[in-house]
Amino acid sequence: MKEWKNNIRKVEPYVPGEQPKEQNIIKLNTNENPYPPAPAVCEALKRLDPGRLRLYPDPACGLLVNSLAAYHGLEPGQIFVGVGSDDVLAMAFMTFFNSEKPVLFPDITYSFYRVWADLLRIPFETPALDEDFRLRAEDYYRENGGVVFPNPNAPTGIAVTLDFIRDILDHNQDAVVIVDEAYIDFGGETALPLLKEYENLLVVRTYSKSRSMAGMRIGYAMGNPELIRALNDVKYSYNSYTMDQTALELGAASLAEEDYFCQVIGKITATRERAAKRLAELGFQCLDSSANFLFAAHPGYDGGKLFQYLRSKGIYVRYFDSPRIFEYLRMTIGRDEEMERLYQALEGAAYENL
Amino acid sequence: MKEWKNNIRKVEPYVPGEQPKEQNIIKLNTNENPYPPAPAVCEALKRLDPGRLRLYPDPACGLLVNSLAAYHGLEPGQIFVGVGSDDVLAMAFMTFFNSEKPVLFPDITYSFYRVWADLLRIPFETPALDEDFRLRAEDYYRENGGVVFPNPNAPTGIAVTLDFIRDILDHNQDAVVIVDEAYIDFGGETALPLLKEYENLLVVRTYSKSRSMAGMRIGYAMGNPELIRALNDVKYSYNSYTMDQTALELGAASLAEEDYFCQVIGKITATRERAAKRLAELGFQCLDSSANFLFAAHPGYDGGKLFQYLRSKGIYVRYFDSPRIFEYLRMTIGRDEEMERLYQALEGAAYENL
Repeated sequence: MKEWKNNIRKVEPYVPGEQPKEQNIIKLNTNENPYPPAPAVCEALKRLDPGRLRLYPDPACGLLVNSLAAYHGLEPGQIFVGVGSDDVLAMAFMTFFNSEKPVLFPDITYSFYRVWADLLRIPFETPALDEDFRLRAEDYYRENGGVVFPNPNAPTGIAVTLDFIRDILDHNQDAVVIVDEAYIDFGGETALPLLKEYENLLVVRTYSKSRSMAGMRIGYAMGNPELIRALNDVKYSYNSYTMDQTALELGAASLAEEDYFCQVIGKITATRERAAKRLAELGFQCLDSSANFLFAAHPGYDGGKLFQYLRSKGIYVRYFDSPRIFEYLRMTIGRDEEMERLYQALEGAAYENL
Repeated sequence: MKEWKNNIRKVEPYVPGEQPKEQNIIKLNTNENPYPPAPAVCEALKRLDPGRLRLYPDPACGLLVNSLAAYHGLEPGQIFVGVGSDDVLAMAFMTFFNSEKPVLFPDITYSFYRVWADLLRIPFETPALDEDFRLRAEDYYRENGGVVFPNPNAPTGIAVTLDFIRDILDHNQDAVVIVDEAYIDFGGETALPLLKEYENLLVVRTYSKSRSMAGMRIGYAMGNPELIRALNDVKYSYNSYTMDQTALELGAASLAEEDYFCQVIGKITATRERAAKRLAELGFQCLDSSANFLFAAHPGYDGGKLFQYLRSKGIYVRYFDSPRIFEYLRMTIGRDEEMERLYQALEGAAYENL
């Protein structure tokens, strides 16, 4: 083997959910929002000046950072923005998790945490969720180099309370604690009020779910200015200009339309409640979701086979062939008419030999 | 000090060129293109479907990768795209520079190489350019963990020949050799023809200079499919969806308009030749540039003071307060009328006490 091949970084790459190119697919596999971005985003897109594109964007992302600060009632120095929350979280891992002690995150959670830890050679341990797929606070009392968990958790959809988060923070004053709130707008209590009390808390958000802007790659973190400054120092050492001009302008525009935002969230959570009921009627065991998806298993079906069956009907959901959850499907909440087609297909499954 | 502060990654962040917010600045400090993107890019921007933004972009970036492959007469498997060439280069450092031996790059070159090596804890050595600021091939014959240099070099603007690159490759079969062609469209010979012969060669390009799209953050690498696969594996372990939908569509559109592209390049190189002559008449020693900037010093002036003087006249150029080059200014080639204002200001400098 050629010598240069020995020095290629060996990684176990994350496998993203499929992005099928076919039309007429019911796409319930990557937790996208079934409704379009706010009208203000469409207008900002029309207003974009192509002549501006010849110049570098503002490396400090002032327009977006200031808009987010105003929206959340924080200082601009408390906001860090990145290319989706994946970029923000990866930067946070690189910036804050440099201890010899293991970083802690649940065994069943967003699968990218493990991938980043591998890539960046960060030691980690994964305390098991309890038998009801809930986090146990006491698992996070032990010595560690950092804590990260989503609230609500993925792919379970189960949220923890603010008291639970406070308990984790009280037991972890020596490491950065990251609460990944990718799905918080669909339910659950945000940890933002705790920022005033805990200087080692970082709260991460994304535009990809509740803001219907997965295609624009915008995520952000909120925390005390010292954490944000450290993130920006690492960002400037990696790529000074991560956010393109379109992301800055469209990202800021999205925040201007709170009514539309609430209306979209309302529709999705209403559909979720109906879907949970329908799935229960169909015999599914459905975890209690505070997110824009349901995580459900059926005692009569093999999870992998049901996934393949739905796929053959043009309905893409997410299946994880992993310990403890291989009987479950994660189904994004789509529009009501899409969900109707899901229910029909699941009804039809009874007549198939799965 | 709080324990969590000990585990923050310590970095010496790169300081990007200023992005002044004032109007009426003559901005010759970050090597942007003075002409707008191709009309096809403006049309693609108008055609963008805001409804598409609710979905994740194609993680494989098919539209852009296929367009670049067709443009360069390569296979799609030979192309990797990223958020500007900074993202591409940082990924390449992370992917390929995992040896215990030092990576080699010139002492005077793109300052981000050193920043990435620091951030990623990659050992490196920086062979000195010769007294005429030229690379010496024999400096790169020694054992190393990789080689990277820009052609033309920055901030000197001096290009090396294809034979020079071939010589470096012949002496470096055991490590990945990266040729950073950020400025190649303005002069110099591309290393692309060598891809057929050397499987360890990676050629990196950007849309930020010749394509007038710094604001869109698009860069790419070309190399043998094994290198590209390794880059993609690391990318998928870091952030699966780096390129937003607007970057994919506008990036592909830019390639469709070769006439416009050549016309812009022609205007800039013609202005550069005139500028080199005018600066020489003003007493400057100007390095031989194959890029969209000139690197010049004046025996009568202190570089830092001249930089400040120009700034006071509303003309931003780049000054590096570094060994060997602290007498030089790097001046981006702007439109002719912008350059006229630069010459006038430099003429006026004779009457100032600099």
